[in-house]
Amino acid sequence: METDTASIPGYAIYRQPADTKCCSSIPSTSTTKPNHPLDQLTVTEIPVVTKLIRNHANPRQIKFNSITLREPPKKEYAAFRSAGGPRPDRKAIAIVFETGSSNCAEVIVNLTHNSVEDWKQMTDVMPTLTLEDLDFTESLTRSDPRVIEACREIGITDMSKVYVDAWSIGHEERWGFDTRLQQGLAYYRSSEHDNQYAHPLDFSVVVDTEKKEILSVDIRRVNGERTAVPMDEHNYLPEFVSNAYKPERLKPINVTQPEGVSFSIDGNELSWCGFSMHVGFNYREGIVLSDIRVDDPYENRERTLFNRISIVEMVVPYGCPEPPHHRKHAFDVGEYGTGFMTNSLKLGCDCKGAIHYLDGVMAISTGEAAVVKNAICIHEEDNGLLYKHTDFRDGRVISARDRKLIISQIITAANYEYGFYHIFHLDGTYQLEVKLTGMLNTYPLHPSEEAAPYGTEVARRVTAHNHQHIFSLRIDSEIDGPNNTVIQCDAVAADDAVGSPGNYYGNAFYSKKTPLRTSKEGAAQYCHETSRTWDIVNPNVLHPVAKKPVSYKIVSRESAPLLAKPGSIVWKRAGFARKTLWVTPYRDYELFPAGDYVSQSQGTIGHPQNETVVDWAERDEPIENTDIVCFLQFGITHFPRTEDFPIMPAEPVSIMMRASNFFLKNPALWVPPTTVDADTLSKLADPLSKLAFSEDDKK
Amino acid sequence: METDTASIPGYAIYRQPADTKCCSSIPSTSTTKPNHPLDQLTVTEIPVVTKLIRNHANPRQIKFNSITLREPPKKEYAAFRSAGGPRPDRKAIAIVFETGSSNCAEVIVNLTHNSVEDWKQMTDVMPTLTLEDLDFTESLTRSDPRVIEACREIGITDMSKVYVDAWSIGHEERWGFDTRLQQGLAYYRSSEHDNQYAHPLDFSVVVDTEKKEILSVDIRRVNGERTAVPMDEHNYLPEFVSNAYKPERLKPINVTQPEGVSFSIDGNELSWCGFSMHVGFNYREGIVLSDIRVDDPYENRERTLFNRISIVEMVVPYGCPEPPHHRKHAFDVGEYGTGFMTNSLKLGCDCKGAIHYLDGVMAISTGEAAVVKNAICIHEEDNGLLYKHTDFRDGRVISARDRKLIISQIITAANYEYGFYHIFHLDGTYQLEVKLTGMLNTYPLHPSEEAAPYGTEVARRVTAHNHQHIFSLRIDSEIDGPNNTVIQCDAVAADDAVGSPGNYYGNAFYSKKTPLRTSKEGAAQYCHETSRTWDIVNPNVLHPVAKKPVSYKIVSRESAPLLAKPGSIVWKRAGFARKTLWVTPYRDYELFPAGDYVSQSQGTIGHPQNETVVDWAERDEPIENTDIVCFLQFGITHFPRTEDFPIMPAEPVSIMMRASNFFLKNPALWVPPTTVDADTLSKLADPLSKLAFSEDDKK
Repeated sequence: METDTASIPGYAIYRQPADTKCCSSIPSTSTTKPNHPLDQLTVTEIPVVTKLIRNHANPRQIKFNSITLREPPKKEYAAFRSAGGPRPDRKAIAIVFETGSSNCAEVIVNLTHNSVEDWKQMTDVMPTLTLEDLDFTESLTRSDPRVIEACREIGITDMSKVYVDAWSIGHEERWGFDTRLQQGLAYYRSSEHDNQYAHPLDFSVVVDTEKKEILSVDIRRVNGERTAVPMDEHNYLPEFVSNAYKPERLKPINVTQPEGVSFSIDGNELSWCGFSMHVGFNYREGIVLSDIRVDDPYENRERTLFNRISIVEMVVPYGCPEPPHHRKHAFDVGEYGTGFMTNSLKLGCDCKGAIHYLDGVMAISTGEAAVVKNAICIHEEDNGLLYKHTDFRDGRVISARDRKLIISQIITAANYEYGFYHIFHLDGTYQLEVKLTGMLNTYPLHPSEEAAPYGTEVARRVTAHNHQHIFSLRIDSEIDGPNNTVIQCDAVAADDAVGSPGNYYGNAFYSKKTPLRTSKEGAAQYCHETSRTWDIVNPNVLHPVAKKPVSYKIVSRESAPLLAKPGSIVWKRAGFARKTLWVTPYRDYELFPAGDYVSQSQGTIGHPQNETVVDWAERDEPIENTDIVCFLQFGITHFPRTEDFPIMPAEPVSIMMRASNFFLKNPALWVPPTTVDADTLSKLADPLSKLAFSEDDKK
Repeated sequence: METDTASIPGYAIYRQPADTKCCSSIPSTSTTKPNHPLDQLTVTEIPVVTKLIRNHANPRQIKFNSITLREPPKKEYAAFRSAGGPRPDRKAIAIVFETGSSNCAEVIVNLTHNSVEDWKQMTDVMPTLTLEDLDFTESLTRSDPRVIEACREIGITDMSKVYVDAWSIGHEERWGFDTRLQQGLAYYRSSEHDNQYAHPLDFSVVVDTEKKEILSVDIRRVNGERTAVPMDEHNYLPEFVSNAYKPERLKPINVTQPEGVSFSIDGNELSWCGFSMHVGFNYREGIVLSDIRVDDPYENRERTLFNRISIVEMVVPYGCPEPPHHRKHAFDVGEYGTGFMTNSLKLGCDCKGAIHYLDGVMAISTGEAAVVKNAICIHEEDNGLLYKHTDFRDGRVISARDRKLIISQIITAANYEYGFYHIFHLDGTYQLEVKLTGMLNTYPLHPSEEAAPYGTEVARRVTAHNHQHIFSLRIDSEIDGPNNTVIQCDAVAADDAVGSPGNYYGNAFYSKKTPLRTSKEGAAQYCHETSRTWDIVNPNVLHPVAKKPVSYKIVSRESAPLLAKPGSIVWKRAGFARKTLWVTPYRDYELFPAGDYVSQSQGTIGHPQNETVVDWAERDEPIENTDIVCFLQFGITHFPRTEDFPIMPAEPVSIMMRASNFFLKNPALWVPPTTVDADTLSKLADPLSKLAFSEDDKK
């Protein structure tokens, strides 16, 4: 059976020669012509890669798991960027399967020289589950006789009403690395668009992804009994709930930018208010920001900030110990790819104001290019006060408004959605905000069971289990140059006792600075008692006034510790989540802290082809005044509430990196203060808004 | 010398009979006619209070420290509100001084019966320093011969260039409770609008507030030497820096509400999207939100949430142990009053969109009413995604946009500004966000000194000391009824070992619930390791589905612990800041956790006329299933950066209270999903914004 790839929702497939049926919308130039060494592969490059690999493999038949840009080694790119060195060769990396096998190979293709450079056979690793891998699971499950019987036993005979969310397997000891596995979580719908999460079923399936075969139907019996399908409907789509809409309650808020946006884009190079960077995208990490620099208004030079920033892993461990729920701990980046799952965004729905979109380019299993139109949203938002001060003597006020530049994407991971917002502020701050929304994963309760303590009964006989969302942000720092050090900063009281000469009144406190010297020391935990932060400093550049190394400070308070017990499956597989911070020396292509191959991984230490950040830290190499990479873990623990059902209000979580004795002074003094003249005021004061503006105010 | 009260910046003074010179702008009806028992005293009521008190005191001459609403006892108000009980008597409370004395009295006036009900003489307490109390310090200091000599010694002869910020005294052992003290911190300006914080002087003064007399000029000598004035200029006002403005960098973002705002106001009663509340204001707490209720869309009834919410204290302890810096630990609510210091806001500068303002009414020392025009800002903001989900099967998307209602004020506390934003979200969340901006407090460095470890050299020879900002939010909860309990929630791994039957895979975790039973137990610390939260529950109302008591959850991650050492002056005075949370049984007029009288307080336990939350906790009374009050401490530790100079980019800090198994399901399902038709789209797609909208996108 060949998947009809053209039907993958949100993907536009590019066939060679041009297939007019599929190519109804033209991808933007940013995805057709590579101008910059970090530009994602284009829709014209991907078929070339495919052809080169197929030729090389001939006569073996292959299918593609992924094809993506092989970014140039850092040194090559740096030479090109700063010293006018040669343009790095354009390369791709593909993960391919010989048809019918579950062993994959990593293939490096040189597009500059039209050659296959390397073919590395991989063992005991499993690559990402693509949307195509997951796509057939539902129909396969519906037609399996064991499933049909399992459904019949609980009164379901119309199999078209059975729906299956395909998930990575998490952990499954019954099959080994010979078999590429996934699991299917089953639901029921009363009608086509009925919310299935209100009707979870008490069985799941284990699927052989390559053979497209159901290996097991795991029925959970309680005291030997099946659990009835919760049949109450809980819907949120307009056809069910529109009679409860109260549109009159919310008057429109319009955001307009009559003179256009304040950023500019050249290909994928973005400039805004002194910041500049390259916006990349790939199937695994989604948005990749590279080469982030800032025009220093005081030193009159461009200063480097971050070589590369991206979200390189996440894990969502569920806290119900009872099988099959132990299998639920999705690694959405490593097991599925946040690029593969990215939404095609829609003007006015996802963001307001003047929006600029970039497309995302990926490859499908045939080796054809697929484009997600409007995968990346770039826009600005007003951000309230930038600063304000009133001189109490004469009441003279100065205030300015802040602005944010936001580069974002939204992904759908079966039930959940995540919005990733990379945000730049006028004061030099980088912020990553993640918004969690979508649907809770649910399960039926047997009459003998209650949801507590491992879940919440969010609807009658429907439980949603406790879970965590832990993200890993990879920060390849370049604070004012390539060599950096991380200094741990702890706010502590002075040692001197109250009444002693050094601390007579007992109020003394300071920031205790501890440089992290080796990658073992670089594995650090957040500490609330000391409001711990980490300064990424350049020890070679002293701030001329503060007389400290210039730095950016990592500020992260929302760093829920991993709750899986030491030695547990999740603890092993999600080794990265054991620490708030890891700092390792930079090495090309050490990107993914849970391993390059996360699916079915066991968290093995010293896996020859699948190292993790735990391995990198174990090398215990120096991390002082050298090229370093930080992996910052943050996230939340989610005990579901009834308010999260049937659809979750977005919950934000964020981290910041703030300039800290980096600039000579406030870097936003170039922002003109807000002054509102009478003419502007009369436009602001909307005549229709009688409440907000009395006649008196308009004078 | 009589202060010219009419010149207090931002205040419009109301004289009897109407003084046309001062009353150029008419206060809004919300500040002239009290309709609601919680409305602030009006400009017509205050003179009545004044007259009654003066008559009662006759022949003693008095001056007024404050006159404000005496809110009705909770029971009286509740009876009026819910059971159609009688309207509570309208009362005021004034703090008065006999002229020339530093002993004050608390006077209760009954406006319903035109009588002075109570006159309580106070001892060993000092009330708030009003703007008038602080106003004369600068001119007094300039003309003091000791100050003139101190200035001459460091080369300053033009005393008009010496500026003095008047502060509360913090701690000063040389004078007792006979003398109402304040301190003055001295600066230099090269010209009238030059930034004085670039030129701090090395002396300060101690002032007798009542006698208007300088008690001491404290010159700090280092190795017997004076410290030179840092003379480098660091300015931010347009006349100095406008040539560095880059207005072309930021294109305008306009926010318009063509159909007006979504909230309505009846007097001071505010309704928005199912929420309703009363907005009050007083000289001490600034904004007070009372009687916060929500229309439950599923139960079709109004449910109570919070009886009263306000910011009742804050402390800013500085961490430099050397005198005179130990005196710097301002309690901006208790020592100055966030109402007294509130800014008159300006359309378009402080907030965007359609704004509704309310005025603030206070009294000045003459007993006349003073109005701060536009003291309270009420407006809405778009808040991005409310929820989104895509069915991966057919790509069908549903998403809705979130909206915030924001009730805010901004205060100027000498050098610092604080913006207080009370925010309501469509999902039922209450959020308090505080934005810190303004100017760092600075001090000159002697050539033998360096700023570290207790400060940062933010400009050449100018240090800004480490400090904390710790706020106290008083939450008089009424979660679905008057009797509540606080349950401490800790995310913990299950006890069962990995491999044991109860936790075979080691992934089990749950929320451990510990009810706080007495006010001693109610004194709790945040715990990061368990992502600690607190549920305010109503144990008498079980959620019909979740089968747990209905609750609102306190979520606060930014709760910097107090760093002053146990036993220190700050630790004693700011007892409230020792704990993240205090829970006490409700008593009328127990409002201020550092005491009703904070100025010059010593943090005495058991002060008969000035109890603090430490005393209330010590009573160790039951706090389960009764009328309780929570005091939540939150804030940040600020190690100044050069980027905070010469004016600080706003730094936000916030807490949330989220519905948690309070509503039957997502309470925002009434919000229609976002749909953008072609017509709307064409309006959104601004034709001028060539970058943001390609021709292709507009199709």
